[in-house]
Amino acid sequence: MRAVSIIGASMTQFGALKDRTLRDLIVEAGEEALRDAGLGPEAIDMLVVGNMAAPVLGGQNHLGPFAAAALGMPDVPAVHVEAACGSGGAAVREAVLAVSAGAADSALVIGVEKLTGPATGEITQALACAADVDTEVQVGTSFASLLAMATRRYMYELGTTREELAAVAVKNHRHGLLNPKAHLRKAVTLEDVLNAPMVADPLTRFDCSPISDGAAAVVVCARERARDRHARPIDVLGHGAGAQAISLHDLPTLTEMGSSVRAGQVAYRMAGLGPAAIDVAELHDGFTIVELLALEGLGFFDKGEAGAASYAGLTALEGPRPVNPSGGLKSKGHPVGASGVAQVYEIVHQLRGTAGERQVAGAEVGLVHSIGGSGATCVVHILGRGF
Amino acid sequence: MRAVSIIGASMTQFGALKDRTLRDLIVEAGEEALRDAGLGPEAIDMLVVGNMAAPVLGGQNHLGPFAAAALGMPDVPAVHVEAACGSGGAAVREAVLAVSAGAADSALVIGVEKLTGPATGEITQALACAADVDTEVQVGTSFASLLAMATRRYMYELGTTREELAAVAVKNHRHGLLNPKAHLRKAVTLEDVLNAPMVADPLTRFDCSPISDGAAAVVVCARERARDRHARPIDVLGHGAGAQAISLHDLPTLTEMGSSVRAGQVAYRMAGLGPAAIDVAELHDGFTIVELLALEGLGFFDKGEAGAASYAGLTALEGPRPVNPSGGLKSKGHPVGASGVAQVYEIVHQLRGTAGERQVAGAEVGLVHSIGGSGATCVVHILGRGF
Repeated sequence: MRAVSIIGASMTQFGALKDRTLRDLIVEAGEEALRDAGLGPEAIDMLVVGNMAAPVLGGQNHLGPFAAAALGMPDVPAVHVEAACGSGGAAVREAVLAVSAGAADSALVIGVEKLTGPATGEITQALACAADVDTEVQVGTSFASLLAMATRRYMYELGTTREELAAVAVKNHRHGLLNPKAHLRKAVTLEDVLNAPMVADPLTRFDCSPISDGAAAVVVCARERARDRHARPIDVLGHGAGAQAISLHDLPTLTEMGSSVRAGQVAYRMAGLGPAAIDVAELHDGFTIVELLALEGLGFFDKGEAGAASYAGLTALEGPRPVNPSGGLKSKGHPVGASGVAQVYEIVHQLRGTAGERQVAGAEVGLVHSIGGSGATCVVHILGRGF
Repeated sequence: MRAVSIIGASMTQFGALKDRTLRDLIVEAGEEALRDAGLGPEAIDMLVVGNMAAPVLGGQNHLGPFAAAALGMPDVPAVHVEAACGSGGAAVREAVLAVSAGAADSALVIGVEKLTGPATGEITQALACAADVDTEVQVGTSFASLLAMATRRYMYELGTTREELAAVAVKNHRHGLLNPKAHLRKAVTLEDVLNAPMVADPLTRFDCSPISDGAAAVVVCARERARDRHARPIDVLGHGAGAQAISLHDLPTLTEMGSSVRAGQVAYRMAGLGPAAIDVAELHDGFTIVELLALEGLGFFDKGEAGAASYAGLTALEGPRPVNPSGGLKSKGHPVGASGVAQVYEIVHQLRGTAGERQVAGAEVGLVHSIGGSGATCVVHILGRGF
């Protein structure tokens, strides 16, 4: 398997971007990633687009060639990958696999989502497509209600408190304040989280990531070329995909996310590293409970201890185990197909040492963790400084 | 790059399958491909699903885990690939790349589409998502009208006659009569094609593939394992992706499909073979014109000569250059995401020598060609007997 590096990364502003189209977002992110890589479109020989909802909400499918044309590279082979909220992470991995296999030398990955515009009910319906429509959606569940059930069970079995859960949101909002591209740049207190409108008991509005528009892009290339092309290449040290049942009612347990455990194991093994070697991580926190499950599934904390660790500040920017310095999906925003790619963007900058006010000092190895649905899809990448 | 083989293949009946759901089709095709491979679900370490319209027409997305759960392999990492009518071919290629890169040893690919049920206008709208929605669909074009324009130009520039074009449909319908799984098992004459209701001048109903439901599946694995696992493994000798502008009005010419030319070149180079070595081919014929463009783009005939060659019977089952022995999309049916995978199924059986009445005698090397949209996506696989 050929080694792969990342030589370009970008993200647009995340938010409710009323005046930006899907095409606008693709062009902005794609062109900026190419500029960052110092490459023109003619140097790219594959395009991968991560997106979930454009066919349903925007009436646009065949998103590979759609994006290629928008970027002025219509003759570059392009494919669209969908894995619900994990679409971005899955798209990055497809590009890494293509370069590893030698089918491409330099691939551009674009994660993009244009969610706002339609009525909220229509957006929620489009997102619910990621659950089993027959057995979950048709009986009235949404992702908030599914994850609320998992949260209740987790709190019941492991004794985690509502305050410990809320600490995840407080921390990520604090980090997001330092990120000029974040959707919700707003400090929140524990009381704010606890007293916010209830979405699905026990999850309040601040336990849930927002509905956002945005795009992010990365350029991956064969490592043997990366050194010549960029002064600060970032190496893909390992990657792995993990899975679990799409339906919550088919899971053997709600207190452990098997997909994260397995994806992490595969990625750690490939990288030849364990959790202790990770200096900084971007973890999926579409709902606060998911960050706790990820912290445990990836081996950062023992089972049942992630809540207390979060409450104690261990996962804060200045703590020993910094998680979601970007603000996470919670504060930075969650434009579904873009989220996983934007996580990679954040870790690339952390490892380059260019993350500004939210820099984790001396970060050399980072981990990116993307989830789709209530955990059915998980993709993990481990990145390391290549300079 | 690790060599890859195909050790299992299946397809369901294609047709208007009113009483079959998306899930039913996935299970039937997936289980049959595993049986053909002699493997249980536990032997599969990756699943790729090719589908275009389920999110829009069926409200179901996150199709990787959806299919994995349906097949009783919920913990197998799964991803959904979309490339319009080329989704199936693109899905096969993603699996081949993953096995080549060493990220999977044995991958199951499922192409599936459930189109019938909704009103015809709704189906047409869902399929039109593969064109550029802003500049093509919003001004009232459909794929039939886009390809009709290409046909007109092709006939004008190259002198191909309406009868020569119709010969493609006549030939593929004749082949489809020999395929018990084909949707439209109906002999048609040149007069039938010419006198059928006009869809978009000059294309009549018999120049257009039908709206079908169906699924197909293949099992790909590392070649080093294939010999032990199956008595008649089929090797992936080469593969390539090609692209061109998504919008017809952005193409440099309508009389040559650049995506097919480029995908063919890449695949031929990898296989170390040229068009003369191909014994049998399944080419995309969603509209009759596309088969002519493919025959020329892949080097089987010189530019402008494919129509006369088809009319002369050179591409018939018993001719020197047999094309679409399965009946093609035209007669076999075109359940979008399934079509590209079903093309592979056909070539696998041709090379195994198990294609029954439609067997091309002594076929040792075959080519599969899948198109998305009006040509923006093209994926080519070259397969060879591995026994």
